[in-house]
Amino acid sequence: MQGFIGELIGTFVLVLLGDGVVAGVTLNKSKAQDTGWLLITLGWGLAVTMGVYVSGFLSLAHLNPAVTLAFAINGTFPWAEVVPYIAGQMIGAFLGALVVWLNYYPHFKETPDSEAILGIFSTGPAIRSTGWNLVSEIIGTAVLVMGIMAMDPNKIVSGVGPMVVGIIITSIGMSLGGTTGYALNPARDLGPRIAHAVLPIANKGDSDWGYSWIPIVGPIIGAVIAAMIYLMVL
Amino acid sequence: MQGFIGELIGTFVLVLLGDGVVAGVTLNKSKAQDTGWLLITLGWGLAVTMGVYVSGFLSLAHLNPAVTLAFAINGTFPWAEVVPYIAGQMIGAFLGALVVWLNYYPHFKETPDSEAILGIFSTGPAIRSTGWNLVSEIIGTAVLVMGIMAMDPNKIVSGVGPMVVGIIITSIGMSLGGTTGYALNPARDLGPRIAHAVLPIANKGDSDWGYSWIPIVGPIIGAVIAAMIYLMVL
Amino acid sequence: MQGFIGELIGTFVLVLLGDGVVAGVTLNKSKAQDTGWLLITLGWGLAVTMGVYVSGFLSLAHLNPAVTLAFAINGTFPWAEVVPYIAGQMIGAFLGALVVWLNYYPHFKETPDSEAILGIFSTGPAIRSTGWNLVSEIIGTAVLVMGIMAMDPNKIVSGVGPMVVGIIITSIGMSLGGTTGYALNPARDLGPRIAHAVLPIANKGDSDWGYSWIPIVGPIIGAVIAAMIYLMVL
Amino acid sequence: MQGFIGELIGTFVLVLLGDGVVAGVTLNKSKAQDTGWLLITLGWGLAVTMGVYVSGFLSLAHLNPAVTLAFAINGTFPWAEVVPYIAGQMIGAFLGALVVWLNYYPHFKETPDSEAILGIFSTGPAIRSTGWNLVSEIIGTAVLVMGIMAMDPNKIVSGVGPMVVGIIITSIGMSLGGTTGYALNPARDLGPRIAHAVLPIANKGDSDWGYSWIPIVGPIIGAVIAAMIYLMVL
Repeated sequence: MQGFIGELIGTFVLVLLGDGVVAGVTLNKSKAQDTGWLLITLGWGLAVTMGVYVSGFLSLAHLNPAVTLAFAINGTFPWAEVVPYIAGQMIGAFLGALVVWLNYYPHFKETPDSEAILGIFSTGPAIRSTGWNLVSEIIGTAVLVMGIMAMDPNKIVSGVGPMVVGIIITSIGMSLGGTTGYALNPARDLGPRIAHAVLPIANKGDSDWGYSWIPIVGPIIGAVIAAMIYLMVL
Repeated sequence: MQGFIGELIGTFVLVLLGDGVVAGVTLNKSKAQDTGWLLITLGWGLAVTMGVYVSGFLSLAHLNPAVTLAFAINGTFPWAEVVPYIAGQMIGAFLGALVVWLNYYPHFKETPDSEAILGIFSTGPAIRSTGWNLVSEIIGTAVLVMGIMAMDPNKIVSGVGPMVVGIIITSIGMSLGGTTGYALNPARDLGPRIAHAVLPIANKGDSDWGYSWIPIVGPIIGAVIAAMIYLMVL
Repeated sequence: MQGFIGELIGTFVLVLLGDGVVAGVTLNKSKAQDTGWLLITLGWGLAVTMGVYVSGFLSLAHLNPAVTLAFAINGTFPWAEVVPYIAGQMIGAFLGALVVWLNYYPHFKETPDSEAILGIFSTGPAIRSTGWNLVSEIIGTAVLVMGIMAMDPNKIVSGVGPMVVGIIITSIGMSLGGTTGYALNPARDLGPRIAHAVLPIANKGDSDWGYSWIPIVGPIIGAVIAAMIYLMVL
Repeated sequence: MQGFIGELIGTFVLVLLGDGVVAGVTLNKSKAQDTGWLLITLGWGLAVTMGVYVSGFLSLAHLNPAVTLAFAINGTFPWAEVVPYIAGQMIGAFLGALVVWLNYYPHFKETPDSEAILGIFSTGPAIRSTGWNLVSEIIGTAVLVMGIMAMDPNKIVSGVGPMVVGIIITSIGMSLGGTTGYALNPARDLGPRIAHAVLPIANKGDSDWGYSWIPIVGPIIGAVIAAMIYLMVL
């Protein structure tokens, strides 16, 4: 139960601050408008750091179903905990997206671009190509999971671990994210996409369900590949 | 007495460097002019880190009446200390704003935009809407207080804590601050607003007292909500 | 053998994320396009931090033949390990460049500028001048190796070392890299240049082999100078 | 003697990387050209961090005559060491500026703006005003010395101290430096100004000796004020 609550709170904060930075950069009349990719990649890294800080004493702060699966496959996380962890992640991600909408409520009315509004909630490809978009999510998530699995042997001093996770996310965003917007996390993409679909958001359009499976399947494949590489090396 | 002095020095440095970065970005002929939201959000995070470093060995470095109230409600800070802490925070914030004015003195004369000058001292909404502006300050401060309360169980290694506080502020600024400029702190907003009202600042206009209660009431509500969530979870 | 594998994995991640950030900034339709030198210098610093994190528990995480040579000359690294280390670095760098190409595959087709495409893989001079380009690579690498050699006496707390290496790289990039693009590392430049030459990359042109010896010879000279300064001082 | 060497090496690296980032942003055809105040303030912070890392095991890494004086006044640094420390700082600063010139040698020929070239070496005011420029250097250096003196009671964990010094410099630069370019350090300004005066730099003009006393006197006054505040508080 504590694991479920920790994952819910952590993923709530992660999505609130992560989708929040995209909202700030995208929405009309926002003070952060048009500050670009640097703010997005730094803001998302800090969002994940914050998610880990506020939840890491309750759960293992996976905040990502692909990470939970990778550690289960790796044999270092009990399979019985996988369902409550992923449930907490999904509910937290949905609620985070809901509160982003409340925080910026009057700004949505001022923003007629429905594609930009979907981009606040969920990822989308710069060039639509099922195969290559999948490849890009696989590569990014494999680097993420390799980085997270390497944290343990690095014996990071107490309290610095959440910063390292933020560094990993910012690095992947800056270096590999220009293609699909680096979902890397099925909950981070699907939870807010459901929020986009069900909430009465001003100026919203289609939720692009045709693309929605790529940020689920890609991260899972990438995480499994990384877990296998890690098992081979150690 | 030491608590009062610590909060005064810390909030002085916090507002000097925090309002200072907005002055640098806003004022004509400043070398930092027009460097935008990224400089403001990074600069404010560093300002809070600096405030905590220079005061943390004298007081608990709350530097924020909403944080002081949250810990008093939480039962981990004595109610008897609340008044001296908040007094130190208010005086420090006023003096910090005074020294920002001295640092940039010749630049104020070169800047005819009175609304921009008020923006150096106090926050204001991107879209004026009493209800939603209040919601935005509540959400931001709730995340701030959740983050600060989570620092204790994270057992952060000695000397890194002030960096974590800066990370929290920068993250909230980047992700949620585009709406109201993220006051999050009644002293940070009211102290400099009084300085703006009483000092003979060149080209200054109205101090927008009609808005001034929102960055006081919003942060207090947000802090109380976060303290309650934290009490429920632990 | 473990040293070879560690250097291979670490340099793979280093080049994947390092060349990746240049690809993100350079390639048409990338979400990171035109975000400039700040994203490149931050992204390369984080790339090196990541390379050290994922390999530092397998090898010494040199990830750079010039660094390996400097420590061998310094007497603190066995000469017998030099060849497997450099072999791992070269293979890792080649593979990292290969995966950058896969990650951004559809974007290469959209980018007709062949010089920009080479710039993703290898460095090139802002002003072509054999002597001064060599001087610039010598200076940058000397600072890098001085910084790395100073890490040991600094007794950096567990898990923070990789961040320090990233700080060194970002600082050199921001401050000295505007001339030649700061290769600082023969493997980082030669491995991806070979990848550029042999892979069927869309819109690619010449691999500029005439320049290719400078980012090999310059870093080696710089590393030897730094090792000698360090031996004299201590 | 070790103190002299440490201060010389540290200030050399500090000025090489600090003046280097301004050169990169200023000089024509540099890859970092026109990346602005954010790169300068981040780059200068990292430059100081690097200077402290490479010298902190040889000397106390003051790297600044105003800091050395403040600690002597404070009673925590022996007066007998003041002269060798300041001598090392001055020689290191001169040599750092010399190597910046060598690193960017061909770029100076491409840059006809002689005022911009002086700005690479030494600071200058955005609005020339003897009194207010002095005030600005006093305020900035007082914050710097308060920050440095607060490091000791913060008991910063081993190896993180140099990062904190960089944070202090970046914060002051972002928040207060828009007026005079934040010299904060007599050696950092005077050493490179002498280099500018005596070296045969292409397209150079006047060395602005009329302003040169302000970044010497201002930082000394500011450091003394901070040392006195600190003595009163503790």
